[in-house]
Amino acid sequence: MRVKNSDFRTIWCDQNNSIKIIDQTFLPFELVIKEIITPEDAAESILNMRVRGAPLIGITAAFGVYLAARLSNDIEYIRKEANKLILTRPTAINLKWAVDQMLQLLVSCDKSEREQVSLNYAKSLAEEDILISKRIGKFGLKIIDKIYKTKKKTVNILTHCNAGWLAAVDVGTATAPIYEARDKKIPIHVWVDETRPRNQGASLTSWELINENIDHTVVVDNAGGHLMQNDLVDLVITGSDRTTFTGDVCNKIGTYLKALAANANNVPFYVALPTSTIDWNISKGEDIEIEERSENEVHFMRGTNSNSNTENFRITLPNAKAANYAFDVTPKELVTGLITEHGIIKPNEFEISKLKNK
Amino acid sequence: MRVKNSDFRTIWCDQNNSIKIIDQTFLPFELVIKEIITPEDAAESILNMRVRGAPLIGITAAFGVYLAARLSNDIEYIRKEANKLILTRPTAINLKWAVDQMLQLLVSCDKSEREQVSLNYAKSLAEEDILISKRIGKFGLKIIDKIYKTKKKTVNILTHCNAGWLAAVDVGTATAPIYEARDKKIPIHVWVDETRPRNQGASLTSWELINENIDHTVVVDNAGGHLMQNDLVDLVITGSDRTTFTGDVCNKIGTYLKALAANANNVPFYVALPTSTIDWNISKGEDIEIEERSENEVHFMRGTNSNSNTENFRITLPNAKAANYAFDVTPKELVTGLITEHGIIKPNEFEISKLKNK
Repeated sequence: MRVKNSDFRTIWCDQNNSIKIIDQTFLPFELVIKEIITPEDAAESILNMRVRGAPLIGITAAFGVYLAARLSNDIEYIRKEANKLILTRPTAINLKWAVDQMLQLLVSCDKSEREQVSLNYAKSLAEEDILISKRIGKFGLKIIDKIYKTKKKTVNILTHCNAGWLAAVDVGTATAPIYEARDKKIPIHVWVDETRPRNQGASLTSWELINENIDHTVVVDNAGGHLMQNDLVDLVITGSDRTTFTGDVCNKIGTYLKALAANANNVPFYVALPTSTIDWNISKGEDIEIEERSENEVHFMRGTNSNSNTENFRITLPNAKAANYAFDVTPKELVTGLITEHGIIKPNEFEISKLKNK
Repeated sequence: MRVKNSDFRTIWCDQNNSIKIIDQTFLPFELVIKEIITPEDAAESILNMRVRGAPLIGITAAFGVYLAARLSNDIEYIRKEANKLILTRPTAINLKWAVDQMLQLLVSCDKSEREQVSLNYAKSLAEEDILISKRIGKFGLKIIDKIYKTKKKTVNILTHCNAGWLAAVDVGTATAPIYEARDKKIPIHVWVDETRPRNQGASLTSWELINENIDHTVVVDNAGGHLMQNDLVDLVITGSDRTTFTGDVCNKIGTYLKALAANANNVPFYVALPTSTIDWNISKGEDIEIEERSENEVHFMRGTNSNSNTENFRITLPNAKAANYAFDVTPKELVTGLITEHGIIKPNEFEISKLKNK
């Protein structure tokens, strides 16, 4: 997508086979490009959220496996690095999915081919991710278009966290239908949840939408219920970090609160996800491991001071204690539908199982 | 209550009849005492939230009327200043209630007595506010005690925003039962909602609880639903800025989301309020005027930098747009009970009407 009128992806391989990422920890204040050279670099980037978002974590891990294969074609070494990559973040299942795909291929191919095969495959996963996002966009567009045809006025869409192109390789999941609607000249306005503690809404989604020139308003996470009570939201679209094969949706902390409000106010609540986000082994959302991150993410915040310098600031008392659960689970009963690359489906085992071998 | 082991109130009249407040905009980083000298000072302090919280706004306005009467005993002048005070913030009804009480008295008393009468009455309203808080504490204690007797383990209480002693003259509303429980040696732990955009939870409630040595954990506003789904909350207690005589509760933005989560997870959701918070004229919560504050409260945040200096810093992009609704309405169906100075009642017209002439 566009950044200051140039085209960017979140991760790419340049002509020298260097793997580059946008270091998202500097956004929205600076655009910093970082090269990831070793599998440890890839793991560190995932761990410290230089890259984040379920699809992008998966693709970065795939390139991480390539970086391991570039250092050594010994499958045991590659496997060890792959496992380290899987352990960086526990909740997003795409991570394990992408690494497993890579490993499966590398085990069966000739030692001497491992570097090239892994590079090609990681690249193809990245391309596939973009195609998936585009298909999600086309299906999601139908929902927005239908609302617009009834309402005949600007469609207000609320989104939580960043499931935009910055969470994928390009285009995004929850934002894909928004970009499609813009291209189709449907008037839209996006309510961007700030998304504490890491503010991915205010920092990343807002940055994306400003660069794409899409009308939006940042609100604190507390505001969504009031907006929905007052008919100011026509549709909620979020992403997902993991979805059970029964339809429970694990996503950024606070998603569940918005789903409750949407349900109470008859606002459609859709989740946009690539099918690689589906966990075929877990039937109950409550069994998903919820990552607990450093409490410093609650205590400290990043911003620009009066001299326009970017700094970390402490916003709590030095002796205050904080807890930092990164995700929550929205039970399927609160989800209107899942927007996947294969179409929009109801969040239930029967419908989801049809996607298994697609 | 205690601040660094000294007793403080939020507002007081010293021996020279100077009106002093804790300037809460400096908390939690600095304890700044400010004298309010003119009715304009009182209005400015309310407007810029040097004092905030429904009960404290009311008492500050009452002292503001005294400050007007001190400058001139002309009732038209006093009335004009009183009206300016009422207009500072539209949602908290205690403000109008307190000013009306003061005016009613001043109209009927002799010109020469207005200064002294208004001072005495403002002081007595402040003392009454403390008694009300204490009674709310005693009634609320019963709820906590009952949970403790069943659970026999630490009672986890979630609170949103600050309805602590900093929101009243002393003791507080939502925190009053917490302080009572601590005095009764009931083990308690408080989940403190950060409460964006002004962070009154992380800044004020946490500061109160640290000074009172009460175990608590700051969480982002997004976390409450997850905590309740996982049985980590036994009870929610919030304050109220205005409650309709039918039981709908208007309180800090985001309260409604917590009420939805409490309802969905069978967590009792109580609202602690002095009866002066009841609006006897509005029957539907949706008819309450919701204050929209400056979007800069969303864009800017206060914190300490690496040199331990306190600064405002910008957390959104310079060209991002924000909206800032200060309150939302929790419909009575989601409220387990109202903890008032006259006892705990159900949130319905029949029960609330019994309080009218108490």
